Amino acid sequence: MESYRHKVQYYETDKMGVTHHSNYIRWMEEGRIDFLDRLGWNYARMEEMGVISPVTEVECKYKHSTDFSEEVYISVYVEEFNGVRMKLGYSMKNAVGTVVAVGRSEHCFIGRDGKLINMNKRYPEFCGALAAQANRLSPESI
Amino acid sequence: MESYRHKVQYYETDKMGVTHHSNYIRWMEEGRIDFLDRLGWNYARMEEMGVISPVTEVECKYKHSTDFSEEVYISVYVEEFNGVRMKLGYSMKNAVGTVVAVGRSEHCFIGRDGKLINMNKRYPEFCGALAAQANRLSPESI
Amino acid sequence: MESYRHKVQYYETDKMGVTHHSNYIRWMEEGRIDFLDRLGWNYARMEEMGVISPVTEVECKYKHSTDFSEEVYISVYVEEFNGVRMKLGYSMKNAVGTVVAVGRSEHCFIGRDGKLINMNKRYPEFCGALAAQANRLSPESI
Amino acid sequence: MESYRHKVQYYETDKMGVTHHSNYIRWMEEGRIDFLDRLGWNYARMEEMGVISPVTEVECKYKHSTDFSEEVYISVYVEEFNGVRMKLGYSMKNAVGTVVAVGRSEHCFIGRDGKLINMNKRYPEFCGALAAQANRLSPESI
Repeated sequence: MESYRHKVQYYETDKMGVTHHSNYIRWMEEGRIDFLDRLGWNYARMEEMGVISPVTEVECKYKHSTDFSEEVYISVYVEEFNGVRMKLGYSMKNAVGTVVAVGRSEHCFIGRDGKLINMNKRYPEFCGALAAQANRLSPESI
Repeated sequence: MESYRHKVQYYETDKMGVTHHSNYIRWMEEGRIDFLDRLGWNYARMEEMGVISPVTEVECKYKHSTDFSEEVYISVYVEEFNGVRMKLGYSMKNAVGTVVAVGRSEHCFIGRDGKLINMNKRYPEFCGALAAQANRLSPESI
Repeated sequence: MESYRHKVQYYETDKMGVTHHSNYIRWMEEGRIDFLDRLGWNYARMEEMGVISPVTEVECKYKHSTDFSEEVYISVYVEEFNGVRMKLGYSMKNAVGTVVAVGRSEHCFIGRDGKLINMNKRYPEFCGALAAQANRLSPESI
Repeated sequence: MESYRHKVQYYETDKMGVTHHSNYIRWMEEGRIDFLDRLGWNYARMEEMGVISPVTEVECKYKHSTDFSEEVYISVYVEEFNGVRMKLGYSMKNAVGTVVAVGRSEHCFIGRDGKLINMNKRYPEFCGALAAQANRLSPESI
């Protein structure tokens, strides 16, 4: 699957002169939403269907700084998925292919009643779409 | 009324080495919410009552830069209020009293049905509280 | 000139369920940097040349809310430019062409010595590029 | 050591109606800077001395959502410090003492020449101040 491209904005830099570390967490969200969209699971539509997917855990290792106006390419990998819990991995590279950061996020799925959803039961086709991605290996382990 | 204090965070700076200009718009929100709270109109409670107050217009003039870890003091003034539309003015000063920015925001009030609320009719006591502030003059005009 | 496209991110929404108003100020920066880049004045390169262009004033009128995953198209107009001060206008539309916000920003130019630069004298070609845009009229006045 | 208090801002919420997860990473920075300041190591002053301390790794586990206007209390713990690498732990609680998130960050120290600094050698008094904190145990393990 194609990686997601984010161009570093001026307002994402800090006085160290580089991108503030908190923004990579936001880019992971951008990449994740794009990834789900390409799988046919537009997140805006999922919310309309009554499914939200909060982040229960997030992790990022910073390897190389990025600067204003640089392009960062984010690849998303399915690390684990059991219908209830989804673990995604992220590899972020700059334009010359250097890994600038690697990340991981963990999610659950919650319905309109505020209760956990087992996606295997409720949306087996979602699970099928994710499973088809799960054999893609991330070249970088966090 | 006492001014609201905001301490500039590292993540609010940009690579110019000073506070990014978009944050002053957020500080105006912080100051406004604190101002309403001191008037007895906690905004979280207003939302629970079914009243939201979106920003319809915002303006900020930057006079002096601010830096990480500086304290900024925000004073809020009622510029106009007719029950339907509220105009607030903001004066932001640093610790030595220099005006770093002046701002203005305009708001309406919307109910659960998505329609404009006339606060004079629905919440006359809100209007009374604001009116009592309206004679405080802002020393700096935007 | 082509408009700049910004896709609304989840982290840009707030609990009203729509885009938080402060983000439009950031999108104006995105559009402005893209606009200057298309004119041949990449802002990252300008900073390397020793020219920064702080925002001295900003204004935004909100006409229509935007939501997560919507695309917003930002057009930038030169409203005034005299070599020392630059006023830009912004028109932001959603995918069906509805104006969601109009904005304005004012800028000066500062050199490595911290002093104001007269761009007419220092970079006449910058002024030529902007002047060529100045006859494009903004269809919406703020 | 006293915990650091952060009041959740409206602009920190998202359309799920609660605080966006990326903000906890920023609150960890707020808490860390406050923690270092209380130890006598004001970060603004450290930067003036020519020492920056980038985040090399960050992690956060979300236990309980927080909402607009809630107060979050952040305690910071020294998990590891060897002069070159500093690992801090974070416990974030709401007003009734419920743990809302636990975090961890890892940092190095870099000088004006862009090279890693061994703080033990360059600033032994910094190491002493941190060491005095290292015996405080974090009640929650991430």
